[in-house]
Amino acid sequence: MSKSASEEAEFFFKEIPGGVTAAYGFRAGAISCGIKNPTATRLDLALVVSDLPTATEACFTTNKVKAAPVRLSQQHVKVGDVRAIVANSGNANACTGPQGIADAKATTKAVAEELGVKMRQVMVCSTGIIGMPMPMERILPRVSELNLALNADGSDQAAQAIMTSDTKAKSYAIEVECEGATFRIGGIAKGAGMICPNMATMLCFITTDAKVEPTELKRATQAAVEQSFNRITIDGDTSTNDTVIVMSNGASEAPPIKSRSSCTHIFRAALREVMRELAKMMVRDGERVTKFVEIRVQGARTYQDAKKIAEAVGKSMLVKCSWHGGDPNWGRVIHAVGYSGARIREELIDIYFGGLLATKNGMASNTPVKELEKVTQQPAFTVTIDLNLGSANYHIFTTDLSEEYVDFNAAEYSAAIHATRQTGLSLA
Amino acid sequence: MSKSASEEAEFFFKEIPGGVTAAYGFRAGAISCGIKNPTATRLDLALVVSDLPTATEACFTTNKVKAAPVRLSQQHVKVGDVRAIVANSGNANACTGPQGIADAKATTKAVAEELGVKMRQVMVCSTGIIGMPMPMERILPRVSELNLALNADGSDQAAQAIMTSDTKAKSYAIEVECEGATFRIGGIAKGAGMICPNMATMLCFITTDAKVEPTELKRATQAAVEQSFNRITIDGDTSTNDTVIVMSNGASEAPPIKSRSSCTHIFRAALREVMRELAKMMVRDGERVTKFVEIRVQGARTYQDAKKIAEAVGKSMLVKCSWHGGDPNWGRVIHAVGYSGARIREELIDIYFGGLLATKNGMASNTPVKELEKVTQQPAFTVTIDLNLGSANYHIFTTDLSEEYVDFNAAEYSAAIHATRQTGLSLA
Repeated sequence: MSKSASEEAEFFFKEIPGGVTAAYGFRAGAISCGIKNPTATRLDLALVVSDLPTATEACFTTNKVKAAPVRLSQQHVKVGDVRAIVANSGNANACTGPQGIADAKATTKAVAEELGVKMRQVMVCSTGIIGMPMPMERILPRVSELNLALNADGSDQAAQAIMTSDTKAKSYAIEVECEGATFRIGGIAKGAGMICPNMATMLCFITTDAKVEPTELKRATQAAVEQSFNRITIDGDTSTNDTVIVMSNGASEAPPIKSRSSCTHIFRAALREVMRELAKMMVRDGERVTKFVEIRVQGARTYQDAKKIAEAVGKSMLVKCSWHGGDPNWGRVIHAVGYSGARIREELIDIYFGGLLATKNGMASNTPVKELEKVTQQPAFTVTIDLNLGSANYHIFTTDLSEEYVDFNAAEYSAAIHATRQTGLSLA
Repeated sequence: MSKSASEEAEFFFKEIPGGVTAAYGFRAGAISCGIKNPTATRLDLALVVSDLPTATEACFTTNKVKAAPVRLSQQHVKVGDVRAIVANSGNANACTGPQGIADAKATTKAVAEELGVKMRQVMVCSTGIIGMPMPMERILPRVSELNLALNADGSDQAAQAIMTSDTKAKSYAIEVECEGATFRIGGIAKGAGMICPNMATMLCFITTDAKVEPTELKRATQAAVEQSFNRITIDGDTSTNDTVIVMSNGASEAPPIKSRSSCTHIFRAALREVMRELAKMMVRDGERVTKFVEIRVQGARTYQDAKKIAEAVGKSMLVKCSWHGGDPNWGRVIHAVGYSGARIREELIDIYFGGLLATKNGMASNTPVKELEKVTQQPAFTVTIDLNLGSANYHIFTTDLSEEYVDFNAAEYSAAIHATRQTGLSLA
């Protein structure tokens, strides 16, 4: 039993296996197409299907440079009754111009024909390198095989197929009781990148067999994203491909979820719980991350002030470096607080590492640095910044910055281009 | 002869030696007080003095957490006729509360008494670790010795004494001709830190023997800072201690510089030139930096849009990592352009590395990646982003992000605290 981290109502949910196929009426599967590298055998094309009509809601990147699949899926989700999500890793299909749009359309068309649904009932997502053409000749001939790979236990394969620099497949599901009935909600995700502030693409596909009315699904999805993925990505720093999709097919016997029905609050908390667990998995699996840090800002005058501070501290390279070294360097934290743009009074600021006071009234506390180090040398800890000015709070999850991260990110494009050339392809 | 990088008028100036003492009537010097470490012998306390009355202007950090010397100097500069700047490295005197203010005052008082001027005619600056008390017992008894160290060739000593993680002392001066007379303008600076986005303290002290009227000095200083240090620091990410001071003592025979006098434009260009050269030295000497990159944004709808893009690209960790690896990863650049908040049209964006087109109309150009790599593998290069939407431009200077930077910044605080303990001091 895991505890809901809701800031509103608290519920307890039963974790169950099955990820994106934990809910009734959904199937998933994946195949290996060699999208990034024709000779590789890893899974790289995933399909998630609902056998019943759905209400579907999605949130997309706010980046003004949007990948072709994002542009297409933004149109498709408006039509409603989405039946399938097709997603590939190895190529982002971003900055690929009209050909990229044509390629995304061709993929949805092939999947729709295979499944016997309309092209507009298929969402498409891509993640991988930017600016390279999609190897459609390695994808389209394989769509029948992808259909055959679908099964009610296929969540793990789909989760693996959307991984890029992730080291672990990300999956989470819960069973929820309400009004004497149960429904299920679960999903898969991929994250990695630094998560914050510059995130590589994140994808998250969630399914539920609750019957959720579209207006309520939209409201619950937006609220849950704000309480989960938006707490790890830092406003505006979204990738060209970020996508969260929630499909509801009503296969359970639980009563319908409407704006004020008896199960609404528990559904909202359950959706938030699933997204938060997946979001935390992304942070923990961030590229070459060695520390998982929660930044809590409290006592701010306004929510916006609290948010500005949490994001400034979470983005600061000098702060992240100090965490990497296990260094309780509160001076760097207060420095970032100072330039965040939020209203502060330096002489009122208290900073805690774990439960230990590091900074009192804007100055070094009496806590021995050896004690503070015991906190910051842990793989996970909390930094609390109390402004003592008001009652607004905000929190985010973030990571350290490692030498390995820099090394890992130093030559992606050249390596990809050279790999492509070795295989005889050229750039568009 | 170096060329003025002015975006307005262009002038050519003669570079001369002497730094902050190149102008007539200024002296400088430094001593070693062991401020960071009592057993170390490096210079760490500097003094710059004008033997004549001055007009003095200063710009300070916009960080809301301000070091004690910043708070005090902000008051002193308002009085006018500043005669001296006393500056130390090894301790920032930031987050030190009322005791920090008292310590900064005590330093200015001791220097004023020694020089026979008023306390309010002395500016004070500090740079180093945040949150530790100033070791006044190692500073105050040495002020007479500091006075004795002053001489008309003392610029290099002063430049060395304000260094922290800088690897080189930073000094630049020029001689300027106007209306048949000459005046001199020169300065010293310290930078380091990552410069952008999280800069360690920058200090810059500039002196001129031109006779500049206070209103004009203020205007010229603000404009020059905007065209130099603000192009490397990224708005808002200033440290707790950043300070730029410009002193004018009129010791030359050049005609007075007023708002519309004949030499006004040349003085403005000369001040900008000195600040830009010092700013570039800071970037090149950034902590563990291996690349010096100019980001030019052109064709934006507005100046603010151009600025947002330059800063988003310059701050992006993933972009900086790619530069470190010499990787012409234009996908990461356009990704940062997309989340900058500026108005763009993806399909109009062109990106150049050096003079080579990497991205045409938002897609990969036909330039072979081997050619692009020849640019990005150089120690210095330019990235030009043309939005093709309007006529507004902006540019900044920035750096890569190296593994060594992370390593270097991983344990500053613990190390400093432990060093302090070894010497028998404790925290406040």
